[in-house]
Amino acid sequence: MSEGNGQTGAAGTTALHGVKVLDLTQFEAGTSCTEALAWLGADVIKVENPAGGEQGRRSSADRPDQDSWYFMVLNANKRSITLNLKEERGKAMLREMIGQADIFIENFAPGVIDRLGFSYDAVRALNPRIIYAQVKGFGPGSAYENYLSFDMIGQATGGAMSITGEPGGRPLKPGPTIGDTGAGLHCAIGILGALYQRQATGEGQKVFVAMQDSTVNLSRIAFAAQLIHKKPAERSGNQVNIGTTAPSEVYKANGDGPNDYVYVYGSRASSVHWHRLLDVIGRPDLKDDPRFATPEARRDHVDDVNALIADWMKDHDKYDAMRILGEAGVPAGAVLDTQEITDDPGMRQREMIVELDHPERGRFTMPGWPVKLSESHVPVQPAPLLGADNGDVYGGWLGLSGEELAALKNDGVI
Amino acid sequence: MSEGNGQTGAAGTTALHGVKVLDLTQFEAGTSCTEALAWLGADVIKVENPAGGEQGRRSSADRPDQDSWYFMVLNANKRSITLNLKEERGKAMLREMIGQADIFIENFAPGVIDRLGFSYDAVRALNPRIIYAQVKGFGPGSAYENYLSFDMIGQATGGAMSITGEPGGRPLKPGPTIGDTGAGLHCAIGILGALYQRQATGEGQKVFVAMQDSTVNLSRIAFAAQLIHKKPAERSGNQVNIGTTAPSEVYKANGDGPNDYVYVYGSRASSVHWHRLLDVIGRPDLKDDPRFATPEARRDHVDDVNALIADWMKDHDKYDAMRILGEAGVPAGAVLDTQEITDDPGMRQREMIVELDHPERGRFTMPGWPVKLSESHVPVQPAPLLGADNGDVYGGWLGLSGEELAALKNDGVI
Repeated sequence: MSEGNGQTGAAGTTALHGVKVLDLTQFEAGTSCTEALAWLGADVIKVENPAGGEQGRRSSADRPDQDSWYFMVLNANKRSITLNLKEERGKAMLREMIGQADIFIENFAPGVIDRLGFSYDAVRALNPRIIYAQVKGFGPGSAYENYLSFDMIGQATGGAMSITGEPGGRPLKPGPTIGDTGAGLHCAIGILGALYQRQATGEGQKVFVAMQDSTVNLSRIAFAAQLIHKKPAERSGNQVNIGTTAPSEVYKANGDGPNDYVYVYGSRASSVHWHRLLDVIGRPDLKDDPRFATPEARRDHVDDVNALIADWMKDHDKYDAMRILGEAGVPAGAVLDTQEITDDPGMRQREMIVELDHPERGRFTMPGWPVKLSESHVPVQPAPLLGADNGDVYGGWLGLSGEELAALKNDGVI
Repeated sequence: MSEGNGQTGAAGTTALHGVKVLDLTQFEAGTSCTEALAWLGADVIKVENPAGGEQGRRSSADRPDQDSWYFMVLNANKRSITLNLKEERGKAMLREMIGQADIFIENFAPGVIDRLGFSYDAVRALNPRIIYAQVKGFGPGSAYENYLSFDMIGQATGGAMSITGEPGGRPLKPGPTIGDTGAGLHCAIGILGALYQRQATGEGQKVFVAMQDSTVNLSRIAFAAQLIHKKPAERSGNQVNIGTTAPSEVYKANGDGPNDYVYVYGSRASSVHWHRLLDVIGRPDLKDDPRFATPEARRDHVDDVNALIADWMKDHDKYDAMRILGEAGVPAGAVLDTQEITDDPGMRQREMIVELDHPERGRFTMPGWPVKLSESHVPVQPAPLLGADNGDVYGGWLGLSGEELAALKNDGVI
């Protein structure tokens, strides 16, 4: 563990081998970014306050005395050190580490990092090669620039909630945390682009992502819908944003569960999927029916389209239906819940779901990393306990002895 | 335009300056990936079939004779060449270009690229430095590996729909296209990691992302919820997945519009936001009320929490409410629609919304790129017309003359 997060790549190394990240992130928007970097093999050092760590660590609903599951799924393969940034000695230690780091990242509330003395200008003065990354709720020039933000605030102001929900119903928050992790993924892209550029220029730079803005990017098809229909994109239930496709809906499958549904889609680019679907449901006679002859005609007769599929679907369980439709070349997806995904053998096989042992929580199962690189493999390791790597990191980076560390701890600096 | 996509960075260059991308993507999951690369300054060459281009290009609902708005918002700052990959001469030309490219990316239906003769092994044999990227619906080992996928199929099978919707209601598709663009963003992260690794190893590698898997990553907090509650994560309306927070809801603001709502959130980490909120709504007397004294108590009295806020909200328009709450340090977000975002001056100022002139469509407005790099600035340019860059690219990469190109066009090769 002395030089990284325990990775052992198939080719003996990893994509970001040797890249050192000072990770001052908290909750999700920042931690999801550094999680991506850790899973590419970077050495991600979480810098946490000694009084309980970053705010997401101890937000457990089930066991307030232990690290939260929320923290666990966002901080695998990182190392943790404690550091009191309100202490002058703590600031000095961080400054010394900044001189040796490749990446510095934070997502505190607006203005906090500047008040701590670690603005971009201050950090760059210590290390012009450093890449300085920030995730905030709102971007420069926004009327909301100084406001707090969390996932759902990014989703509300970035357009996601205006396009999620039933037609005529209230706005709904998408379940996936695209305001947070969406921003984190965008930030990772910016950091990696800056790392590449640094190889040519020798200089670092600042990377900035607003949660509102990254939500807009994930909602961009709704902006295409607005260009088509010349009005704001609307909530359309399960229909695609552009709203011109049928089928494009979930259908109730056989079963009593809340997720016994299958999404069936037919591209508006042609009638190929539709014809395959008619064969599956035993209605090839309808291929020439003028109600369904073109994508436009099917959209105009969406209720008839839905009735045909619903009638077939009700007699199949969702797995059978997906298999039959999938084998026939019809785009179809069973609505899977988190447990069904957790239990999927293929998910386990490709380490998209992994089982880990945590020193306090014991054995548990969580999602791994979806980006598969043929020459960079990082086995998932559980999130670190608070300050678990003080000895290694402060010893290695700053040459501090065990005695010195004990004194610093005693003084509340680490 | 001879060496890239017209970028002019503040520092005279861009993050991915000189990086050459052979972009065989279509629709959104792949195009959103190469859009990110283009906005980092890579030279992205769309390789499209001469008969109408990639499938997303001519899927217009409003003007079937023109490039679609859907295409437009996903293919800015790219170049386009036509190439018939079913012709042996077309294959030979692509092979020659592969020798000169840094990145090869495709998201055809499963098996198509292999049948065309451009599997990873085949491409790698032509250029061992190339990074070969694929986005598919499902990963290796999945029972669904050979099935077609679109955005909503990734969302259904990746858990997103099981956690979106009203409690007790049917599964709903999040409006943002996280199955598609979510996969594209993950793929961009993988490509950039592989580019960085190549600087050390001199070798390329394969990058693979399944839409189902990247949706799981964006839904990972629901997997934490499952660990807490020991059952599959459920649909919870606007409440956060973990389901332990109040307030965590949209409230109806003054106004008649479908999006006259404001999301108000109070972190479960403390009572700080809640106390600020009570001050804003003129009820500081409730700070000591046992119904609201702790995050757990507020959650147990969520209906009372909601009633208090709803009563205040109904007298404020959403912009005023967000301003008042935001200034007071309460996390709050007006539910904004695509037009409101389009009209936001701050969005325009930071080029998150841009106005462009397209040769066929004329002047229009679309979202730009949310990742802001201080030393890499790529002004947004409209998506290319089909084959617009045949002359420049085939002339520059393959040394073909105008006469040779005319002959190839005549033969249906380009």
